[in-house]
Formats: sequence, C-alpha cells, structure tokens
Amino acid sequence: MSLIRKKISVIGSGFTGATTAFLLAQKELGDVVLVDIPQMENPTKGKALDMLEASPVQGFDANITGTSSYEDTKDSDIVVITAGIARKPGMSRDDLVQTNQKVMKSVTQEIVKYSPDCFIIVLTNPVDAMTYTVFKESGFPKNRVIGQSGVLDSARFRTFVAQELNLSVKDVTGFVLGGHGDDMVPLVRYSYAGGIPLETLIPKERLEQIVERTRKGGGEIVNLLGNGSAYYAPAASLVEMVEALVKDQRRVLPSIAYLEGEYGYEGIYLGVPTILGANGIEKVIELDLLEEEKAMLDKSAESVKNVMAVLA
Amino acid sequence: MSLIRKKISVIGSGFTGATTAFLLAQKELGDVVLVDIPQMENPTKGKALDMLEASPVQGFDANITGTSSYEDTKDSDIVVITAGIARKPGMSRDDLVQTNQKVMKSVTQEIVKYSPDCFIIVLTNPVDAMTYTVFKESGFPKNRVIGQSGVLDSARFRTFVAQELNLSVKDVTGFVLGGHGDDMVPLVRYSYAGGIPLETLIPKERLEQIVERTRKGGGEIVNLLGNGSAYYAPAASLVEMVEALVKDQRRVLPSIAYLEGEYGYEGIYLGVPTILGANGIEKVIELDLLEEEKAMLDKSAESVKNVMAVLA
Amino acid sequence: MSLIRKKISVIGSGFTGATTAFLLAQKELGDVVLVDIPQMENPTKGKALDMLEASPVQGFDANITGTSSYEDTKDSDIVVITAGIARKPGMSRDDLVQTNQKVMKSVTQEIVKYSPDCFIIVLTNPVDAMTYTVFKESGFPKNRVIGQSGVLDSARFRTFVAQELNLSVKDVTGFVLGGHGDDMVPLVRYSYAGGIPLETLIPKERLEQIVERTRKGGGEIVNLLGNGSAYYAPAASLVEMVEALVKDQRRVLPSIAYLEGEYGYEGIYLGVPTILGANGIEKVIELDLLEEEKAMLDKSAESVKNVMAVLA
Amino acid sequence: MSLIRKKISVIGSGFTGATTAFLLAQKELGDVVLVDIPQMENPTKGKALDMLEASPVQGFDANITGTSSYEDTKDSDIVVITAGIARKPGMSRDDLVQTNQKVMKSVTQEIVKYSPDCFIIVLTNPVDAMTYTVFKESGFPKNRVIGQSGVLDSARFRTFVAQELNLSVKDVTGFVLGGHGDDMVPLVRYSYAGGIPLETLIPKERLEQIVERTRKGGGEIVNLLGNGSAYYAPAASLVEMVEALVKDQRRVLPSIAYLEGEYGYEGIYLGVPTILGANGIEKVIELDLLEEEKAMLDKSAESVKNVMAVLA
Repeated sequence: MSLIRKKISVIGSGFTGATTAFLLAQKELGDVVLVDIPQMENPTKGKALDMLEASPVQGFDANITGTSSYEDTKDSDIVVITAGIARKPGMSRDDLVQTNQKVMKSVTQEIVKYSPDCFIIVLTNPVDAMTYTVFKESGFPKNRVIGQSGVLDSARFRTFVAQELNLSVKDVTGFVLGGHGDDMVPLVRYSYAGGIPLETLIPKERLEQIVERTRKGGGEIVNLLGNGSAYYAPAASLVEMVEALVKDQRRVLPSIAYLEGEYGYEGIYLGVPTILGANGIEKVIELDLLEEEKAMLDKSAESVKNVMAVLA
Repeated sequence: MSLIRKKISVIGSGFTGATTAFLLAQKELGDVVLVDIPQMENPTKGKALDMLEASPVQGFDANITGTSSYEDTKDSDIVVITAGIARKPGMSRDDLVQTNQKVMKSVTQEIVKYSPDCFIIVLTNPVDAMTYTVFKESGFPKNRVIGQSGVLDSARFRTFVAQELNLSVKDVTGFVLGGHGDDMVPLVRYSYAGGIPLETLIPKERLEQIVERTRKGGGEIVNLLGNGSAYYAPAASLVEMVEALVKDQRRVLPSIAYLEGEYGYEGIYLGVPTILGANGIEKVIELDLLEEEKAMLDKSAESVKNVMAVLA
Repeated sequence: MSLIRKKISVIGSGFTGATTAFLLAQKELGDVVLVDIPQMENPTKGKALDMLEASPVQGFDANITGTSSYEDTKDSDIVVITAGIARKPGMSRDDLVQTNQKVMKSVTQEIVKYSPDCFIIVLTNPVDAMTYTVFKESGFPKNRVIGQSGVLDSARFRTFVAQELNLSVKDVTGFVLGGHGDDMVPLVRYSYAGGIPLETLIPKERLEQIVERTRKGGGEIVNLLGNGSAYYAPAASLVEMVEALVKDQRRVLPSIAYLEGEYGYEGIYLGVPTILGANGIEKVIELDLLEEEKAMLDKSAESVKNVMAVLA
Repeated sequence: MSLIRKKISVIGSGFTGATTAFLLAQKELGDVVLVDIPQMENPTKGKALDMLEASPVQGFDANITGTSSYEDTKDSDIVVITAGIARKPGMSRDDLVQTNQKVMKSVTQEIVKYSPDCFIIVLTNPVDAMTYTVFKESGFPKNRVIGQSGVLDSARFRTFVAQELNLSVKDVTGFVLGGHGDDMVPLVRYSYAGGIPLETLIPKERLEQIVERTRKGGGEIVNLLGNGSAYYAPAASLVEMVEALVKDQRRVLPSIAYLEGEYGYEGIYLGVPTILGANGIEKVIELDLLEEEKAMLDKSAESVKNVMAVLA
C-alpha cells in the first residue's frame, strides 16, 4: 500500500502553463513539474520557485519544479500540454497547424517515453486537431487523450449570464459543444440560472448577443490585452479537468473527445459532453439535438476535418 | 444592518497587482478593482475580465473590474499599492526613489479622495520609504498605512527550510525583520520546524547559507526570469495581510510599521513584528533582541533613513 | 471604516444547532454564539468549547461561545433558529404547533431585543408556520425573515440522483418547492445532471421513486437513526443560506418566503425560488408552473394554512 | 495507471467516529466507510446517509457508507479506530483496559483480514496501550500503527493560549508529549505565538494554569457536557493525521509511536514528535529534553507500562 503523491506535468511555461501549475499546486492535486524548452529553462525554474515560495503563505504542500528535461516528468499521472505557438499576424492557418503539429509530435514522444500510462490533456490550438495529433502519436487509448475547450467556453458564457442577471456564478450553468470560436455550439436550451431555463429569463435577442460574445470570447481578451491572450480562465478550466480525474469525480464536463460513431461522426476529435473520472473520459454523453443544433455541430465537425486535412 | 461586500482596490495591474487581484477574488475577500494608468486601461480590463471568467470554474463570487479611473475605487475598505517602476540598469537609486515617490504621492491623493477611511498596504520599492511617503501624503493614522516585505521574506525562508528538511511548509515558521534585501534581519532564533528551533536541526553553516539565500531571494528570481521579477509569492504575501484585516484575524505577521520609539527608533517605517486585525496594525510587538540582532536592525534603520533623505 | 467580524447566533444547541455553529465557524463566516435554555447552559458551553478546540487544527479563526443569555447575541447580523421540540409519539400535530409557536414567540422577543436589525433564518418545524410566527412577532420586514426547507429537500434529491447516475453531486441540480414532507413539490422539470434534463436520463418510473424517496427523506433518516432526526444535511443547508447573505452572493435558492400575491397566494410563508443576498430575500422568482405542479403547490399552500389556523 | 480514490474506514460510529467520517469526506480525502456493530447498523447507515445528503450543499465528492460488515472495508488505505467503551462510574481502570483490549483485538483481526496493507490510527483509550494492542494483534510494521493524543492536546493548549493573548490560532504553536491526562508533558519551551516563545509573553504562573487546564482538557468538556465526552476536536485531530498520510505532507505532529530505544524507552507506545507522511510514521524526532521534562516523560512511560501490565 502506498500513498505516493500524484504527479502532474505541465508542458509549456507560458502564462497559461504557469498559471495552471500554480492552481494545481494550490489545490494540492499533486506535485507539479513545469516543462519548457532548454532556452526557457531558467525562466521556467524561476516561475516554479516563485510559486513554491508562495506555498507557506497559501498553505499548500506540493512541490513545483521547473525543468527543460523530460526525464523529470517520469511517471506522471497526468500531463497537460499548453506548448505551441499562437497565430501571428501574417501567418497562415496552415502554417500554424503544421508548426504546432510538429511541437505536439515531439512533445508527445517525450511524454510517452517517460510516462507510458499517463493521461494527457491538450490545450494547444487548433485544439481539436492537436488533440488528434497527440492521440495518434501517443498510441494511447482514446479515454486517455482529452482536449479542452468547452469548459472554458462554458465558463465565459456563464460569466456573461451571471452578470446579465446579477446572480451568483455558482447558480448559472451552461453547455457549449463543438469547436472553439465561430464554430462553437452553445446549447442555450441546456443552460440555466438556478435551474430555470435561460430562455425564460433573458430576451431572445439579448441571449443571442451573449452567445455571440461567448463565441468571440477569446478574441475579446486578445483585443483588450493588446499583446497576448487569456490565461486565467483557460488555466482554471484545465485544472477543473485534472481535478475530475485525480479525484475520480465523475464530473459531467464538455471535453474534446475521440468519436467513433457518436453523434454520427467517425474518427475525429470534437467537443461533446463527457463524464470525466479516474479513467479519463469515462463516457461520451449523446444529447438529443434539435435540427439547427445538429447543423451547427456538423459545421464544427467539418471545420475540424478541414484542419485535419492540413496535418502532415 | 447591511451585509455589503468588502471592496478592495489594487493599484498597478502588472504581474504582482494582477495576481494579487486574482488571489483576493479567489478567497472571496471582497469585490476587487484593478487600477492602472489610462494607457494601460484596456490590458487592465482584459486581465480583470479573464479572471472573472475563471470564477464559475473556481467557484468564487467576487466581482473583478479593471479601470483607469480612481472614481471606481470609491469607498474601498482596503487599497493595495503595487504601482511604480522597477530599477532599470543604469538607473541610480536616487532616481528610482524620486520617481516612485512621485507615483506614490499622486496615487495616494487619488486613493484618499475616494476612500478617506480605507487601509493602505504598500508593496512598491524601496518599500520602507514608499510606505512613509504614502503615510505622510495620506494624513492617515499610522495603523492604517502598512508596508509589506517581511511576510514575503519569511515565506522564502520557510520554503528553503522546508526543502532542506523535507518537511511540510505548514510546520516551518520563520521571522524576518528589518529591510528587504541585504538589510534583512532573519531571526533564526525565532524560527522553527514543528516547534523545534532550527538551530538544533540544521548545522550553523548551512543555516547561514539559507539566510543568505533568503536575503538574495528576490534577486534569485530576477536572475532566473531574466526579464522581470517575482510576483506569485509577493502577491500571496499581500493577500495574507489583506485577509488578516478583512477577517479581523489578529495574525502575528511582520509588517513595515511606523515606529514612535519602539525598538528605539523614531519617525521611520521599518519591518517589525505586528498584530494585524480589523484596525490594521493593532500593535507593534517588541522582541528582546541579542546585541548582534539589534546591530543588524540598526543597520536596516540606517538604510531606511538614507533612502528617506533622498525623498523630495 | 471598520472591518468588524460578522456575528451569527444560533438558537438551540441540539445536534442541528451545534453542527450549524461548527460549519459556520469552519467557513469563517463570523463569530458564532450558540444559545440554549439555562438548564442546557453547561452542555452548550461544552459543545462550543469542543468546537473551538478544533480551530487550530482545522485552521479557522472564529470565536464560538455557548450561553443561555440572549445578551450575548447582542448586535448579531444573522440569527438562526433551530430551537423547539420534535413531535413525540402520541403528540397531536396541534400540540406540536402550539408548543413550538410559544418557543418561537419567546425566542423572537429576545432576538429582536438585542439585534433589532438582524436577519432571521428559521428551521423549526412546522417550518412554514413557525417562520410566519417569527415574522409576525418580530415585526421585521419580510426580506429579513426566511425559512429553510427547500435547500435541504433539493440536496436530498440531488444526492439520490447523483447516486442513481453515478455522477458528481457538483453536476446535479434540483429544485424543490412548497412544503416539507408529503406536500413537497419537486420540480423534476427544472432538475438536471450536467445540464441535461433528468427526464431524459432516468426512466419516469424510477424518477418517481426518487421523488417519493425525497418526500420521505426526513423520515428515512429518522427510521434509520431510531432515536432522533437528521442534522448534518439540515445544518449544511442553513449554512448555505447564511453564506449567501454574509457574502452577498445573490444565490438562487429555494426559501420559505412571505408571499404577497406571488404564485397567487397572499399572506402566507411558502417554499419558493428566491434570490438570497445582502438584503436577505432579494426577490421571489415566479416560475411558470404546469397545471399539475400548480395543483401540488396549492395543496402545499392549503396545508400551510391549515397549520396556521392552529396558531394561537 | 489508475487514479482510484483513496478509501478510509472509520471503526465506531459514535460522535467522534461520525464526526471524523464527515470531516474526512468534506476534505475529499477519499471515500469513507463508517463501521459499527450489527446492533448499530441502522443508526450507522442513517448517519452516513445524512452526511452524504450534505455533500451537494457542501460541495464535496466522496461516498460515505454505513455498515456493520467489515467486508465493506476491503482494501482500505487507512483505518481509524474510535471503537471501544468509555470508563463508567464504578468501573475499575483494569476493567476498562481489558474490555477495550478485547474490542481492539477483534476489530484489528477484521481490519487486517480485509486490508492487510493499510495504515491504522487509534483513538480508543487508554490510547497508548490500545495502540500497542493493535500493533501486536495486526503484526503490522510499527510505521503503520499510530496512536492519536498529542495533536488534540496541542490543539487545546493552542486554543487556550490564543484566547489568553487574543491572537489568531494560526499563529500559536504548541507541543505536547507523553500520555494523555495527568501524564501529559506540555513542552512550553517549544511553544510559541507568532514565533515568540510563550514564556516571554505569558507570566509563568498563568502559563502553568494554562498547562494544567490542558492536562484536564478532556475532563473539562466531560464536566460541561454532563453526559458524554468531546468529539469535535478529537475528530479534527484524527483527520489532520489522516490528511498528512493521504497527501504525503511530511507534517511534524505528535503521535503515539512505537519506541525502540528512542528517548531511552524500549518496546512501548508513547507520545513523541514524529514526521507523518506517505509511509505513516516516517521518523521519530528526538528532542533534547531538560531534566524535569525527561522526568515527566519517564512518569508518562511508567504509566503506560502499568497499563500494559494489565493487558491480557
């Protein structure tokens, strides 16, 4: 019998990766290894040490280390991938896809080498295709390779609704399927404030504005920051997924999951409702969709396939 | 009877200010207003919104807003000042002092205008002199103007000791007085692991190395990061002080406090053990110091006076 | 400006009252005063002291005192009433009502005397009539006198559903209106797992069994215990309501609220969806009810009126 | 790789056992099985269900079950023993010892049968002898059988000191060695408020009163309650020890540990400072004791041996 601490590695020590590492440690979900490329080794170590120095004050017991050596990730229970580049002005989408695909492949090889039994959660964009890449490269079963987008999109939707109604975020639920961005499928029908369907609380037109703001939620932050993109809410979303696995919570959360027939799709990763627990994706939940919702989801799936076509 | 939420404003939306805002909201200590200069208004709003969008997932109810207008800080219970510049290569210390003094003065005027009854906690360096500046400019009683350095320095010391002994940070206590940096006075005599004096657990020479590492703790992070300075542990330290006030905890924490005779000093702000509660600094605790400790504290006080001499 | 701690008094130091006091202190919602009759003064002091002695280990700063003197409740922000007797074998319902009515009256007089501006939350059964009694006796506005039953009933319903579906309780919501017990109106239509309507996840017949089990949830515990009734879940429910007020969360929670026309009822206290915040009941939410739901709620209202008819 | 939840069984569903179960679940340290004798099966199930029904409101995901069958404890990671009788008026100490010894033996056989690799934490009095009994009966290595008394005694001491000085309990530390009750050895020398030795903060005479009150701390609660003994602080103390193991915190906590030469004692269980982590008792810390402290500890050890002499 052993009570060894869980070990969670976070690949990429940028704002999202670093914030994820901090929030994981804060919750004492396990020891955290923050990994970046050799040129970033010192800053990565610096961030990890700074976080660790917050531990006596915040009262958490979790080791946080920064490294550029994957050997330090050995025997991780969960690995979170935030590495990759963001799209720069003038860069084509295809260039983005192929660059990040290369990153995913090399990162995955290292992960698998040292933690052949781990779960992997992917954040890197375009997230559906990148999760697929990690899935293929790892050779892992589908339940152990998961992408994040819906938790974040739902969180944004819930924030906007809570503001609109001036209610606690604790009582607003929301469900977002499909892809990130314009292909997002916010299921307003399955979204509530205190259990009351939003459609009865917010006029249709206003609700559509909120949906539209959610779709462009990432861009809104990018525009405000001027330089960089969101990281607090993305990190919090990753942490919620990790927590569901580490504590075997069997949460109902939207994940980017590998579909083999569900919702009529075959062989792609797409954002759908899932049950997350000790076995990663324990189940894909199939909702009855209205015709228009299915049409939106089809469009999402089509986009994913278009991106996948670019994969080398 | 009114159960209005507390309101906490954070001046300066850089890494430390932003992280402080997030940690305050996470603990539901109150609504948070993050303030920066007009040129930074959009990034400040972006960070605040990103944090808010983490709230449904992290489960906290606290509003977070970004602004460049001090009017939005109206009726704050507590204001935390992280604004100011960091010393750049080639900049003289006196230039740093005078630049930040100007920032403190203008910031304080705005704070006082909108929240004449608030408590102010200062982080800006050189923190002793800057806290003094805020004290003078505000005209507030001394219990309501407090500087931070010792909580952070103690946290670093505790981290290093916990690592050295491979023990929980929860069981390592440490006490650091005096100024930040080389003038720091780590009271090893008053530092323990599980209640056991460190001097009996760690060889003298090794303990001195740890003390020295603590003294240079800020620089260690600066060197690693390459570009910028620590913000996780500084933010956590500020939050611990705010929490002590908001929850009237009567914590025993090192603060930069205005001394009127305590420890033999008159009219300066210096790092000393204090009780923090609903009235801010409720008491300065006077410890019996050994001759060598007093000598170190004298040196700290001397440094503070030297910096104060530069104040306009 | 003052950062005085909130003060919460709990009347009745039985299992529910004591557990409520402990959970309130644990969350650092304020200092807690546990009150009982003079004959119970020592046990009340004993429980309070035992709880306080858990504080260094559980890490909360909140004073907990036991007393039989209402003077000690002076200037409470919130008062929770758990006092009163339980129905004993052979006791008529009318006897129960009249005995507890007397208790409510005398307790309320004492509360009002020392805390004329407080909020009152009532748990004592029959809770609709007892909340009404406290309302009348206090002369308080209706937003400041609130009864608890729906949070508990919903919690039970959610527990049973989470077990049935083997899902996290965090993702199951439920809504229960009307009275406690057989008059309960579980709004299955407004209840979800991960946002998915329960009616699509659980066969109708099984769902009805769960509803029925919820209705008899209090009795199930009574039967199992053999001697006494539930107190963990009731206490947790009271604490959730107190927290909503103290932190001004604007939670959507079912409360026993005074109705003046809402849902077609006039001058009675009944379980309905409400918004709870800094002003107590900030709003009664009027849901569209199906005919059969309205019929059930009418039956609940009828029962309340029947009990009110017994009031002296 | 498996992320299976930890499993913790609590033997004895009286107030302490039940409260321990609730606090364990609240912290999501694992699933909890509450065990009592067949005659108590229904009340045990009732308490477990009541606790579980608090989970949606308190927001924890942990199963809690009540049972009288040890089969349900199969593969527990940790088992906490609170079973046994309390000394009744007219009962000789030897009768108490022998009765509880029998309980320990039969309980231990069942535990070992179903969880041969678990850790066991014992609370039953007289706790030193009962921990020894469990150690012998289990055949477990000494690191896996631990007794609780010092965490509770320290918590009481810390509470009294925090009250005396009107300070946060977070900043008061205390260290209590040796046996429970009159044989307790409070190490005032190793006890601090904010790192400041208590001896410099509280007059010697007053400090002795506090020590004496700590020694009689259990009796104080018994006298106040009139019927029964403390359970909140004892349960919290057990939970702190379990948490140290489950999260591999390497806390420095006083435990009742098996000594083989440490402090000069051989083959007895006695309260000493220990490091608690993933391997249970990872180390016994040997403090330098003053002559008078060693004399008190000798007296404690003598008492333990006297009780052990009564063991069958």
